[in-house]
Amino acid sequence: MDLGTLPEDLKPLVKFHGHLCPGLLIGYRAAKAAADSLGLGPAEDEELVAVAENNSCSVDAFQQMLSTTFGKGNLIWRDYGKQAFTVIDRDKGKAVRVRFIGDGLKQKRPDGSVDREAFVQDLINRPQDEVVSVEEVAVEPPSEAVIEQSIACARCGEPTQSSRTVELAGQVYCRPCAAEVGQ
Amino acid sequence: MDLGTLPEDLKPLVKFHGHLCPGLLIGYRAAKAAADSLGLGPAEDEELVAVAENNSCSVDAFQQMLSTTFGKGNLIWRDYGKQAFTVIDRDKGKAVRVRFIGDGLKQKRPDGSVDREAFVQDLINRPQDEVVSVEEVAVEPPSEAVIEQSIACARCGEPTQSSRTVELAGQVYCRPCAAEVGQ
Repeated sequence: MDLGTLPEDLKPLVKFHGHLCPGLLIGYRAAKAAADSLGLGPAEDEELVAVAENNSCSVDAFQQMLSTTFGKGNLIWRDYGKQAFTVIDRDKGKAVRVRFIGDGLKQKRPDGSVDREAFVQDLINRPQDEVVSVEEVAVEPPSEAVIEQSIACARCGEPTQSSRTVELAGQVYCRPCAAEVGQ
Repeated sequence: MDLGTLPEDLKPLVKFHGHLCPGLLIGYRAAKAAADSLGLGPAEDEELVAVAENNSCSVDAFQQMLSTTFGKGNLIWRDYGKQAFTVIDRDKGKAVRVRFIGDGLKQKRPDGSVDREAFVQDLINRPQDEVVSVEEVAVEPPSEAVIEQSIACARCGEPTQSSRTVELAGQVYCRPCAAEVGQ
């Protein structure tokens, strides 16, 4: 596929993810639908939260397009194995759950395999309501990330976030060292 | 801070993360050090793996610079609370662990608070060996992500990744519905 013909907002997403695939496009349409529904731009800090019900390629679209990222703490993973995402706007006090409903777009080739190229084109071009459902939902936004002090592990000496240390016989260890010492 | 004066490879990272902060810069220097040490560009698929020993801002640098992303499955989180990262190159069979060692760069203001602006400048400009340590390590690369079929939940009807379904009395449910039905 000629990447040059892609929609402009898809190009940086493909660059971030490393390749174009159906999963990424599911996220692309879902993230756009959530943003349009809530009237959003990308998150500077933690004013947006995305709750992803899977850990597949689609999540990268939410990271790149809405800046709801793993590192910033405003991406929350629920291991439900569903192509569904809830985006929460803390400022507006609103949330939408967007779910992929476009499985029926998959066309079979004569040999029974899915026509991936046609599926990719449909995921890009079909009207939104054939690809995702959007539902306003009531959810409590999670608490924001907390910055903690680090403590040097008594064994390896490496600075370790205080809530991830383990105390054994009056000494403070990191988790891997605690597992060694505690044996 | 004038973002226009930042190094060119830092600008898209700040855009991805949403803001410039010391944590992001720790990741920026660590990801560069890992890439230089292994002679890497960003990952198209899963040929690189990053193991992050924290879930803070720094991880976003690995996502954006090396394309070791949450969605692609080549970002692995170990909840150790350490500013340390192991990058594994499957093709070369090599790995390095990069660890932040620049806590001593923090300068105190007369009132005892950290001079954040000076810290940010130091994180960008100081020589690599004042900011991170790089150590070649032997690690087994994790298995690659697997694509699974989806099954419709017997209660909500939503397609659910088969390994995340729960069977109760001969019916197959998604995890949230199984929790409701099982009560």
